[in-house]
Amino acid sequence: MTQDPSNTSMPDMQSSADPREIAIDRVGVREVVYPIKLRTRAGGEQGSIANVGMYVALPHTQKGTHMSRFIEVLEAHACEPITPEQFPGIARAIRERLNAQKAHISASFVYFMKKKAPVTGIESLMDYKVTFACTANGTPENDDFVMTVAAPATSLCPCSKEISAYGAHNQRCEITASVRFTGEMWIEDLVEICEGASSLEVFALLKRPDEKYVTEHAYDNPKFVEDIVRDLAIALDADERVRWYAISSENFESIHSHNAYAELERKKV
Amino acid sequence: MTQDPSNTSMPDMQSSADPREIAIDRVGVREVVYPIKLRTRAGGEQGSIANVGMYVALPHTQKGTHMSRFIEVLEAHACEPITPEQFPGIARAIRERLNAQKAHISASFVYFMKKKAPVTGIESLMDYKVTFACTANGTPENDDFVMTVAAPATSLCPCSKEISAYGAHNQRCEITASVRFTGEMWIEDLVEICEGASSLEVFALLKRPDEKYVTEHAYDNPKFVEDIVRDLAIALDADERVRWYAISSENFESIHSHNAYAELERKKV
Amino acid sequence: MTQDPSNTSMPDMQSSADPREIAIDRVGVREVVYPIKLRTRAGGEQGSIANVGMYVALPHTQKGTHMSRFIEVLEAHACEPITPEQFPGIARAIRERLNAQKAHISASFVYFMKKKAPVTGIESLMDYKVTFACTANGTPENDDFVMTVAAPATSLCPCSKEISAYGAHNQRCEITASVRFTGEMWIEDLVEICEGASSLEVFALLKRPDEKYVTEHAYDNPKFVEDIVRDLAIALDADERVRWYAISSENFESIHSHNAYAELERKKV
Amino acid sequence: MTQDPSNTSMPDMQSSADPREIAIDRVGVREVVYPIKLRTRAGGEQGSIANVGMYVALPHTQKGTHMSRFIEVLEAHACEPITPEQFPGIARAIRERLNAQKAHISASFVYFMKKKAPVTGIESLMDYKVTFACTANGTPENDDFVMTVAAPATSLCPCSKEISAYGAHNQRCEITASVRFTGEMWIEDLVEICEGASSLEVFALLKRPDEKYVTEHAYDNPKFVEDIVRDLAIALDADERVRWYAISSENFESIHSHNAYAELERKKV
Repeated sequence: MTQDPSNTSMPDMQSSADPREIAIDRVGVREVVYPIKLRTRAGGEQGSIANVGMYVALPHTQKGTHMSRFIEVLEAHACEPITPEQFPGIARAIRERLNAQKAHISASFVYFMKKKAPVTGIESLMDYKVTFACTANGTPENDDFVMTVAAPATSLCPCSKEISAYGAHNQRCEITASVRFTGEMWIEDLVEICEGASSLEVFALLKRPDEKYVTEHAYDNPKFVEDIVRDLAIALDADERVRWYAISSENFESIHSHNAYAELERKKV
Repeated sequence: MTQDPSNTSMPDMQSSADPREIAIDRVGVREVVYPIKLRTRAGGEQGSIANVGMYVALPHTQKGTHMSRFIEVLEAHACEPITPEQFPGIARAIRERLNAQKAHISASFVYFMKKKAPVTGIESLMDYKVTFACTANGTPENDDFVMTVAAPATSLCPCSKEISAYGAHNQRCEITASVRFTGEMWIEDLVEICEGASSLEVFALLKRPDEKYVTEHAYDNPKFVEDIVRDLAIALDADERVRWYAISSENFESIHSHNAYAELERKKV
Repeated sequence: MTQDPSNTSMPDMQSSADPREIAIDRVGVREVVYPIKLRTRAGGEQGSIANVGMYVALPHTQKGTHMSRFIEVLEAHACEPITPEQFPGIARAIRERLNAQKAHISASFVYFMKKKAPVTGIESLMDYKVTFACTANGTPENDDFVMTVAAPATSLCPCSKEISAYGAHNQRCEITASVRFTGEMWIEDLVEICEGASSLEVFALLKRPDEKYVTEHAYDNPKFVEDIVRDLAIALDADERVRWYAISSENFESIHSHNAYAELERKKV
Repeated sequence: MTQDPSNTSMPDMQSSADPREIAIDRVGVREVVYPIKLRTRAGGEQGSIANVGMYVALPHTQKGTHMSRFIEVLEAHACEPITPEQFPGIARAIRERLNAQKAHISASFVYFMKKKAPVTGIESLMDYKVTFACTANGTPENDDFVMTVAAPATSLCPCSKEISAYGAHNQRCEITASVRFTGEMWIEDLVEICEGASSLEVFALLKRPDEKYVTEHAYDNPKFVEDIVRDLAIALDADERVRWYAISSENFESIHSHNAYAELERKKV
């Protein structure tokens, strides 16, 4: 383990031997709040604030890990704009700096996309919850990177529409997709795939002609929570980059105080 | 201050004098999770679990309060079934036990009401968030008791209905009412007043004939967030028990990822 | 599928065929808030309020599940006092009522244990977060029941103690254990095992002699987050009822605004 | 009210008259997530993401407000770097665009400050929760701006230290200060005042010599939750810019599962 010059005169308890013979799967820090930069699909940059967890596997022989080193690695990387391709590099840097067999990092942050209202074309920003997670075990070709996005959307109940003389209950839902993929996939790509599976995407800014459009369009496109995950599965099955996915939709039912939920996981061969 | 026999041999720092001459408005404990019992309007009892905060005013002369005594008072009262009338008694007990000028307690808990589905009459339980809060200052006739309930409900947008050829966006909303009142008022009374101001109340259990009913009924009864608080204000204005109210509605818009909100406070003369 | 008499005159869209050929792993309801009763180790009963999720596997041939039936099953079982042994019966009831291959239920609730302060013996209630989860697939001997408890505790840093002339930073931590087990295991058993792995358990009510005791006792018993999970692993390894465990500790560091964390999963052979 | 050209052909329900004669204190949007820029005390800029609420007072004569206009105002201002001096300008812009008597905006965001570890001087970023809130009523000299910061810190119990042979329980606390002030006050100024009232400030990155320092320094500087708010009050009393403050500290007790709390509000003459 690299000697840290600032610590030379003090005992390093963490590096001492541990007699219990119990390896620890993951030890580290979490709820670390840090600014990050992201490269956008359009070629620009976007700042965000991430909630970060960083962990290493601890061998059964060692008493503890060195928590401050996680923050040092983060500090060293936080200023570079990140893409899904570059993110695993931070996991590898943790692995090396902590002298570990395996390292894991996950960073959850808000990501904005500019959207045009469907009729007036007025632009506004929509916020999405995104998580980048990566495990590095020393063979970069085996780095396990998972990208997750959560997109709010509208769901309109097909049963309510079918059995009612008029109207149909609808509500906000949250559609989540985690993917493992090959090649290049942007946050924007995955958000659009998620939104495409809903009754209708949502917007931050709608004028009246837009509101008429979204109301009628959702009514024309009713979906159970089951339909949303199935249509999302079909879209991800058709996307050749995607090797694995875990998807869900949670519908905040307007007629109940509880939520409807469906989930599905699939590894392609 | 009453001598606590278990503590005789140790210095009581909290009781020592403080030279800074700064009185503290409220000092105490919060996030205390404790089981409570409530008397129901129908004459029964209902158990719940409260998140409790208990505080006293600390005079400028005293260094600290005795935190453990709050828990002792709670322990002594937690087994009695509580009604809005009896709750101020706990505030008075804190005031006395802590030897304070003023004491405050707030307890937030889930409360259940059995509801019948509107067509089939099938029964299920709906959960509501309730808070009892009371400040006692030594003159029981001035005890300041505030009851708050939060009821989920449906809101259906009048503008969306008006401008669209069919359909109307709707969503879950949360209607909140805090009241000061004279005489007897049950949680159930206030919940029903809140639900009455919405496009439609929500249920835990609806069969298909019920779902048809609630869909059509909400469509027949569109309300902006402004309409909900105004109709709720009218109902509370008409209730002679109510002396003061602060009300709000937050609508979890199905076409946006943000919420619509309105609030209103009124002291009757 | 059983015909529901209340629905006879209306189309049952959920039961119709689905052409997409995509089975859904889990579909159902969540954030259902419901009162439950629990049997205690001491032979009594305790009421609580559960946050419940209930799901079934949906075959690729069927369009949707019948959400209202989950609530009906819950309604039918909520009044019986539950133990870990009886909980899988609810999962089986969901499976049957929903006519599904596989059903899953999880219920998260607060559970209280009466504790005596270490010196004065004064009693108070401590609250713990508990989750019961069960998957039923039609062969009761394969019911997969997992019990999880989260216990707050104190952790005191060995490094801080070692390198400092006096004092040592300490903080509240949350120790979590999920277990699969054979035979009888009570919530109380698992809570005590978790608390035994910390620097010291915490209490709701401590008088000064107790506070002296816990301060000194924690200082005498320093533990890294790694030590907590290792000592917990040793205790669960030694417990012959336990067949599998996943454990963690999250320490809310008093010298940082982020947390230290360790986790470990083990299936015994 | 300004005619919006995109809406000409559709009825404007919100602008219609309301017969109920009930004015609404605040109506608008909340949980709007939007990127913002802040000017720093050091003369630079810092990006953040705000959770925004925007409201207007609605006269008793008008049926509803125009929710989309709030987002338009935000969109127009979000790109300019904000200081406490410039923030009221957004409240005024809402008031004008919505044609209202009174407008209110609050924006809550994370703000970072670079800190040096106390011994090694190693730098890292600390995150603070900040809220800017402003009400504008048409006379700019009466704009009511309130700045709030929440700073995590360490608190060490004086009683535990006094009565114990060694050690002292300590924990993370959160110190919050809301202020109204005259002249120029930076987020950094208020954070430093809050941290100065604790047993010790916290850091994201500490090496062993730093950990020794903070452990011993906190032990040398014990504070009850009462001491923290009193010392903070003294500091704000001495600051001539501050005209009003509301302050609190919540200590996440390491020996309990509940928190200790104190609060204090003062308007200077």
